[in-house]
Parts: sequence; C-alpha cells; structure tokens
Amino acid sequence: MKRFSVTARSFQYDVAMGRGAWRALRESRRAGYSNIFVITEEPLWKRWGKMFLRDSGLKNARTLFVPAGENSKSLKMVGHVAARLLESGADRRALLIALGGGVVGDLGGFVASTYMRGIDFIQAPTTIVGQVDSAIGGKTGVNLGAMKNLVGAFYPPRMVVAEPIVLTSMSPRAFRSGLYEVVKHGILAGNPLFHELETKIGGMSPEDVKTLEPVLAVAAKVKVDVVNRDEREARLRLVLNLGHTFGHALEEATAYRRFTHGEAVGWGLLAVMRLGVRLKLLGGRDAARMAELVRQVGPLPRINDLDPKRVLGLLSRDKKAIGGRIQWVIPERIGRVRIVSDVRPAVAAAAFLDVQQIVLP
Amino acid sequence: MKRFSVTARSFQYDVAMGRGAWRALRESRRAGYSNIFVITEEPLWKRWGKMFLRDSGLKNARTLFVPAGENSKSLKMVGHVAARLLESGADRRALLIALGGGVVGDLGGFVASTYMRGIDFIQAPTTIVGQVDSAIGGKTGVNLGAMKNLVGAFYPPRMVVAEPIVLTSMSPRAFRSGLYEVVKHGILAGNPLFHELETKIGGMSPEDVKTLEPVLAVAAKVKVDVVNRDEREARLRLVLNLGHTFGHALEEATAYRRFTHGEAVGWGLLAVMRLGVRLKLLGGRDAARMAELVRQVGPLPRINDLDPKRVLGLLSRDKKAIGGRIQWVIPERIGRVRIVSDVRPAVAAAAFLDVQQIVLP
Repeated sequence: MKRFSVTARSFQYDVAMGRGAWRALRESRRAGYSNIFVITEEPLWKRWGKMFLRDSGLKNARTLFVPAGENSKSLKMVGHVAARLLESGADRRALLIALGGGVVGDLGGFVASTYMRGIDFIQAPTTIVGQVDSAIGGKTGVNLGAMKNLVGAFYPPRMVVAEPIVLTSMSPRAFRSGLYEVVKHGILAGNPLFHELETKIGGMSPEDVKTLEPVLAVAAKVKVDVVNRDEREARLRLVLNLGHTFGHALEEATAYRRFTHGEAVGWGLLAVMRLGVRLKLLGGRDAARMAELVRQVGPLPRINDLDPKRVLGLLSRDKKAIGGRIQWVIPERIGRVRIVSDVRPAVAAAAFLDVQQIVLP
Repeated sequence: MKRFSVTARSFQYDVAMGRGAWRALRESRRAGYSNIFVITEEPLWKRWGKMFLRDSGLKNARTLFVPAGENSKSLKMVGHVAARLLESGADRRALLIALGGGVVGDLGGFVASTYMRGIDFIQAPTTIVGQVDSAIGGKTGVNLGAMKNLVGAFYPPRMVVAEPIVLTSMSPRAFRSGLYEVVKHGILAGNPLFHELETKIGGMSPEDVKTLEPVLAVAAKVKVDVVNRDEREARLRLVLNLGHTFGHALEEATAYRRFTHGEAVGWGLLAVMRLGVRLKLLGGRDAARMAELVRQVGPLPRINDLDPKRVLGLLSRDKKAIGGRIQWVIPERIGRVRIVSDVRPAVAAAAFLDVQQIVLP
C-alpha cells in the first residue's frame, strides 16, 4: 500500500492505494464525525459491503443507494440524496464516503460539496479510472441534459482509498476500458511506467493483483503529481485531457451508446497520435509504440462507419475550449505532450480519417 | 465610496460601497471575460439597468431574469439558469453578476460556483441586508423543500459593489427590515456605530443617502472584519447569528408568511437580550438601550398570539446547532457577545415569554 500527499487549496489529503487501503479509513473514526454515510450502488454493496465495514471499522456507517448509470448524475438526484441525508440527521459534521465508480464519486462529491455548504468527503473508488484518475483531484459534478458535468464543484476529498480487490467485480470490457486511461498516464509519464505497460498490459487481469497493484499505483501518482502542481484545471491540468478531445466527440456522435468512456479515449489517443505525426510534432517510432500499447489492451468498437463530418463538428464543443479554440494535447514523444491551440481543422480531419482506416484485431 | 479588502482562501476581493460603486465594475472589463451576464429581477432591471450599464461600462452584458421571491432559490432554477448560460455561450471565462437582493445573490452565487465547476462572480446587492451582510463572505445556496440554504457552497465573489441609490426602490417595510440587521451589527460592533445608530436610525430613509451611506459602510465593515478572521462558518462567524436563533424559529412558526426575515431578527434580538438579562450576562441598562434601538426602527408584526411551545420547539432545528446543542449568541454588553451552548430550555422559554408581553408602538 502506498500513500501520496496532495496539496489542495486549504488542506492536504492522502491517497491510499493497494490491498488493505480501506483500513486507512480507521483514522476517520478519530475525527469526531457525527454520522458517517456511504453512498454506493446496491449490487456493489452486496458484494463488498461486509469487507468494507470490517476493514474500515466503520460499523455504524449508513448506506445511501443510488441507481447505477449516468442518469444518477443529475440535479434531481442531488436533491434526493440531500433530502435523504437530512432525514437521516446528517449535520455539518457528517462524513460522506463514495464507494463506487465515476457516477457515485462525481455525484457523491457534489452532494458533499453542497450539503449544508460542504461536509467532509472521502473517495473509495471501485473502478480503474476512479482509482488512477477521477477520484483524485476534487472534480465533482452532475450532468445537465446532454452536457456532462456542466454543474459541479472543485471539492477535494479528505482522503482517497483505492482497494484493488474490488476490480475483480468489473466486467472484462469495463476493466479494459480503464486500462486505456492507464495507457494515457503511461504516455504522459513516460518510462518507467510506459515500458512496464509495454511488457505487462496485454496479459493484465483484475485477478492478478500482484501485477496490477504496482502499475495502478504508478498511474495514480501521475495524476497526483499533476494535481499537486495545479489543483484547478488550468494550463497544466489540461494534459490529462490527452485523447479526450477526439474521445468526447466520438462519445457524443454515438449518443454515449457505442463506446465506454475508456474505449472512446482509446480511439482518441490513436487519433491524436496521428495528429501529432501529421503536425510533425511526434516521430513515427514513438507513435507506433504508443499505438501498439492501445492495441494491446484489446478490441475497440468500430468507428469506420461514422460520418467524419459529424465527429469533427463536435470537436469544438469540447469543454476545455477557450474562446472557441480547441486546446489540443498532442504527444511529442513518450513522456512529453504539448498543448497546441492553432491546429487547422483540415489537419484534425486528416488525422481522424487516418484512424478510421485502422482495423483493430 | 469605501473599499475593504477581504481575504478568502484563494484570493482577495474588494467590497466597494457607496454612491458610484458600480463604477468599480469597469475594472472587470480588463479581466478578459468571454461573456458577462447579469442575473437579476425584471422590475429591478427596468428601474436601474440603464444606470447600471452606464456606470459599469459593461455595454455588452446580457441579462438573465429570475422571478422574484424565495421560490427561485431551488435546484430546479439552478438547472434552468445553467441551461440558459450554456445556450448563451457562457464558457469557463464568463462572468456572472448578481444584481438584486438575497434571492438573486444566493442563487446567482450558487450557479456561478457550480457552472462548469465555477465561473467568476460579482455581487451587486440592492437591499440593505445584502449590502451590509449577505453579499459579503461567499455564502451561496438554494433551499430544499422547507430547508433554507440546505444545498449551497462557500464561493467568494470577485468583488462586491454596493450602490445605495438603489435602496430607494425598497418598500418602507423592506427598508426597515434591513435596518434590524444594521442594529445587529451595531450591537456586535459597539461604538461608534451603536451610538451613531442611536442618534440617527429613527429618521433614516433611503432618500437621505448622505446619512445612510456612512452608516451602511460601517455596518458592512463589521461583516468584513468577521469574514476576514474566519471565512468559513466556524466559531467566530457564529456571532453573526445574533438574533437569528429566535428569529428563524419565528419565521418557521409562521410559515415564512408573517415576518420579513429582518422583522424576525428584530424580535430575535429583543428575545436574546431578555435571555442575556435572565442569565445575568447582560446588564439592564445596556439591554434597555439595545431594545430601544430595535423599537426605533419601527413597528413589528405581533407575536403575542403565537404558541410559545411551538416556537420554542423549533429552536433546536437551528442549522448552527452542533450535535443538537443550540449555540446561543448572547449580548454581554454593547459591542460584545458570548457564545453559550448550555442554556436550559426553561430559561429560553422564559425569555421568549418576556418578549411576548412587549407591545411595540
């Protein structure tokens, strides 16, 4: 188990990662919380609740179940959960723990940030992307109509506890989807993570915790380092958007039905590599190694039937656009990216057409 | 015009107060905002919009109208305003200015704090309580059912611009209601504010800006000082709750229909003075001077028909209660209060019965 320290605006918090990470929650028993609530999904709780209570020692924690799926990330659900907290006697000294994936973490964090103007919050992510990325850094939020995370807050958790054993509950497809985000971290961080992924990612499985745990810890550290240098999403944090500009457009173009988020990022990484090559920012050899890493994760749903005009038209709606200009995060080599805001649409289009030709195994 | 500096967690901001305060908004033209929006109520904008645009120089500001009244403080309205912002092309570098009273300020601030996880926000309060109290300090929020401000955020504005000329739009009753909060600040601050109020509050009118402006500036400074010492609501900020424990109970007991918030605070001040006297914390002479100040503001709706049991039963629902214990803010003398958490219910009841006997002019 590793622990990293993250500097937020007003306090520091630890990310505890690895087998036994939930035991770090025992510390919160000393914090004098009036009440402790776990927001989670019922099937997850049925599978892991007992172990969670045993490891954390939080015998009196009460559960708040939310339905699985993106629909739970709504203002309506925020009101619903806040009303449940109030009924259950939660005051300003209550603690909310989010045990789950991105939906539970984003919703739970936003509820915690707004309930009585903010109660303490702990992230206990149960997916790969949660453990290495989204649970770290304090981004919370809900969707408004089709706009993801339009309403939210920066609200750092008091602690992140990432127990890898729960990843065995993930479907193979969900597991692979998380690995695309790990590949993103590998490209950002370079070696030794990149090289380690090259040798191991093909055979990774959630059951093989021994292999998985150190890789996840290094991948999480990439996020921790970025957050420590720039808690709010300004220039630096933007690098985490690598692969996401094309990725979001692909998700939107298919109404969030065809790809998991990670799969869309997988394609997004391939597309932005092509963009880097076309802009002569990225050499062919590094591009090939990066692309090979994406391919090793496994099959991606097809994109060659998509209308390129539609996908390209959606690029400019990227939330990280500034004054309508897309802020492209483009790999320059393994371990280095550059932010470019003056990419001509024709070049982005050509890069996308390049990847539409790719037939993955 | 006076300016005070307020230290928030992450940045400092100015409170500009007095005739011409809106001119301070000219500075925001240099900040490079992509879009500027004014959230306000339509009648207010009809009366003051032209002057606001002229003074601020923000010719391209767009308006977002919300219906007057507490019902606008809802999660539903947050979603509605966020959707309007999105339609209008607001990105992360948009600025939102709240021109209005508590409803517009609380709602606008919460929208600003959550839209794309936070855009810049400026308070342009148009009521007394807004100008001397609620627009300063970063409290924002909406109601959930009957629970006021249950969902909200601490989100300091980038600037507060308080132009007293707009107070001439207030009804006499609303104006007086604000003065009860000024009395609260006088009791907290002591002299010279208290003495100045003793000589002037009886004849104060919104038209007499010369008399009003310096009093409001000193009253606002009381809030600024408290916020500077304790941005979040911990021990120190609690002093601002003076008169509000009984006040909130009175508002709830009458379903928010009989009293304005300020009037309830007026009665709350009288009740907590009696509590101070009964606890032998406050001398009779100071109590009499404080009570006289409340009386000079003008008539208060009756309370002698209310069931004391009902009112007293609502006291413990005060949001500032800690572990179910009411944190009483009790005047000890003019300019000093004490926080007491072990007041016996029977003594609080006796103090309330005392004020039920008072017949105001």
